[in-house]
Amino acid sequence: MKKLFNSHETMVEDMIAGFVAAYPGQIARGTHPRLVRRAGLKDAGKVTLVIGNGCGHEPIAMGYVGEGMLDGNVVGDVFAAPSADLIIAGLREVTGPGGTVLLISRHEGDVINGMEAAMLAMDEGLNVRPLWMYDDISSAPKGQEEDRRGAAGTLFVYKILGAASEQGMDLDALVALGEAVRDATRTLAAALSPGISPLTGRTMFSLPEDEVFIGMGVHGEPGVGRRKLEPLRDLVDYMMTALVTDRALDRGTMVVPLINGMGGTTMMELLLVYGAVADWLAARGIKAVSPAIGSLSTTQEMGGFSISLLVPDDRMLNLWRAPQATPHFPVIR
Amino acid sequence: MKKLFNSHETMVEDMIAGFVAAYPGQIARGTHPRLVRRAGLKDAGKVTLVIGNGCGHEPIAMGYVGEGMLDGNVVGDVFAAPSADLIIAGLREVTGPGGTVLLISRHEGDVINGMEAAMLAMDEGLNVRPLWMYDDISSAPKGQEEDRRGAAGTLFVYKILGAASEQGMDLDALVALGEAVRDATRTLAAALSPGISPLTGRTMFSLPEDEVFIGMGVHGEPGVGRRKLEPLRDLVDYMMTALVTDRALDRGTMVVPLINGMGGTTMMELLLVYGAVADWLAARGIKAVSPAIGSLSTTQEMGGFSISLLVPDDRMLNLWRAPQATPHFPVIR
Repeated sequence: MKKLFNSHETMVEDMIAGFVAAYPGQIARGTHPRLVRRAGLKDAGKVTLVIGNGCGHEPIAMGYVGEGMLDGNVVGDVFAAPSADLIIAGLREVTGPGGTVLLISRHEGDVINGMEAAMLAMDEGLNVRPLWMYDDISSAPKGQEEDRRGAAGTLFVYKILGAASEQGMDLDALVALGEAVRDATRTLAAALSPGISPLTGRTMFSLPEDEVFIGMGVHGEPGVGRRKLEPLRDLVDYMMTALVTDRALDRGTMVVPLINGMGGTTMMELLLVYGAVADWLAARGIKAVSPAIGSLSTTQEMGGFSISLLVPDDRMLNLWRAPQATPHFPVIR
Repeated sequence: MKKLFNSHETMVEDMIAGFVAAYPGQIARGTHPRLVRRAGLKDAGKVTLVIGNGCGHEPIAMGYVGEGMLDGNVVGDVFAAPSADLIIAGLREVTGPGGTVLLISRHEGDVINGMEAAMLAMDEGLNVRPLWMYDDISSAPKGQEEDRRGAAGTLFVYKILGAASEQGMDLDALVALGEAVRDATRTLAAALSPGISPLTGRTMFSLPEDEVFIGMGVHGEPGVGRRKLEPLRDLVDYMMTALVTDRALDRGTMVVPLINGMGGTTMMELLLVYGAVADWLAARGIKAVSPAIGSLSTTQEMGGFSISLLVPDDRMLNLWRAPQATPHFPVIR
């Protein structure tokens, strides 16, 4: 299986070097080569937003560092959470008097290392508040939301908190807003074909030619079952029914859909998914607004997509639509 | 081979419906279901930019309709140019007193149908000027640039003319600027793995596991040869050498690189490509500025990438960096 790289040993550092070289006015490399930070952050009192994550899911999270979204990203190895030490180094770099929200997408390594880093940073006198993000309804049942995995719906938290912190919101309010966004978000994924590990060159799982996995996680974690491949609107109907069973949507509700491609799924297909989602919602008197559509959080060239739904209040919706200038997040209107 | 769609018969219309539904403030559907136009175009005297193209290459071209880029897109069938009649319908819809630049990416069907449409539109009294775009150095030798195919470097023309028309540039000046951008652009592609036809479900070509095609076109047109898969920087060195052999770059020159993924190539790999390109240029005293990196012009989930280089003058560079608000073009800084 073919991949483009110089060597396995330098793959992650080379990628970060390419990224930082590409966006010099927006992005700077930190004191450690695995730290990516926003360039030219002017307001020292601004609450900063930081996330640590394993790489291999680009453009998340590096691509969303910049004005109006993240202030720092701590880059782990491929599909592996960064160490607590590395996360602390990132926090030291971007945490000012306003403090920092440390975003943690709920996966075991990210939670363990992130919580340790947050505690040690607080011991050092840094005002760091961890925020757990989870949205994947397939990974734990209703009523056990805190046990769920983070998936593409975490992008609602990045974007909305990023805009709010840019506007001067303080740390306590940001954490409360982040929890509210998280609690208003649900995601379900369908995987069609595996990605290729950049480390081993092997496909990450196998799946019969006429089946899809429902609920697969961003590293190929098992979901809730398989289905036969069917016309798209039937698959979308199944997924939307599961999403609104988990969190009811009344007629007249406004929702923001986020259609995420896992990497190998075409924009043509993602637009077809959006069309089916919008039709499904319209038929039930639910209004879709300001969607994001793209391969925003990927698992290499895995085929498949997820549907995330945010039920925003007015404040969230305005912040979701606020301008940002990151290298890779789309313009939301 | 799996694809997500409702039916082959409605695939293109369903995709356009999903796209138009997603971006109601930015995008409107025209009088014919295959016409996509900018919503709320305020200045009736503005010169408009239109392109007709076969679909299957999303986000190009629909995704680049909007403020600061294209005013209209005429959508053909998958990988097939739209008919002259359909292009004329698109021109009637968006051509005002300022006239229209009809962008034509040089492929046989696009040229034949586009030129016929332009002539018939002029017979109707519409002020339409066709602009041929070609940038792929592998498709015809130096000295026969007009015989070359259009590739991802055509995006420089979209963006720069889009910004210039927004600022009020007139039709003659836009055509001259478009020709200058085209003549300052060169592209070379490398393909690693085939895409899957959404019509047949079959892979579009085959290639040994340890080889890459150099110079493949956006529909799988043959390039200039095969190479063994090698470390990325060696492949980039080969491609950059070919590009600067075609158009010399002196020390001190400023260039804008556009690294385009063909669909199935990861952002991780595209960032690695950019890093190798930036290093190659820096080692020769050439300064890379304001790159675009992403799967901007795709061939379904084909694996591979292209490198486009624009040698801009100051005016081009300012227009390239000007704000735009299209659904899918990245922020350029």
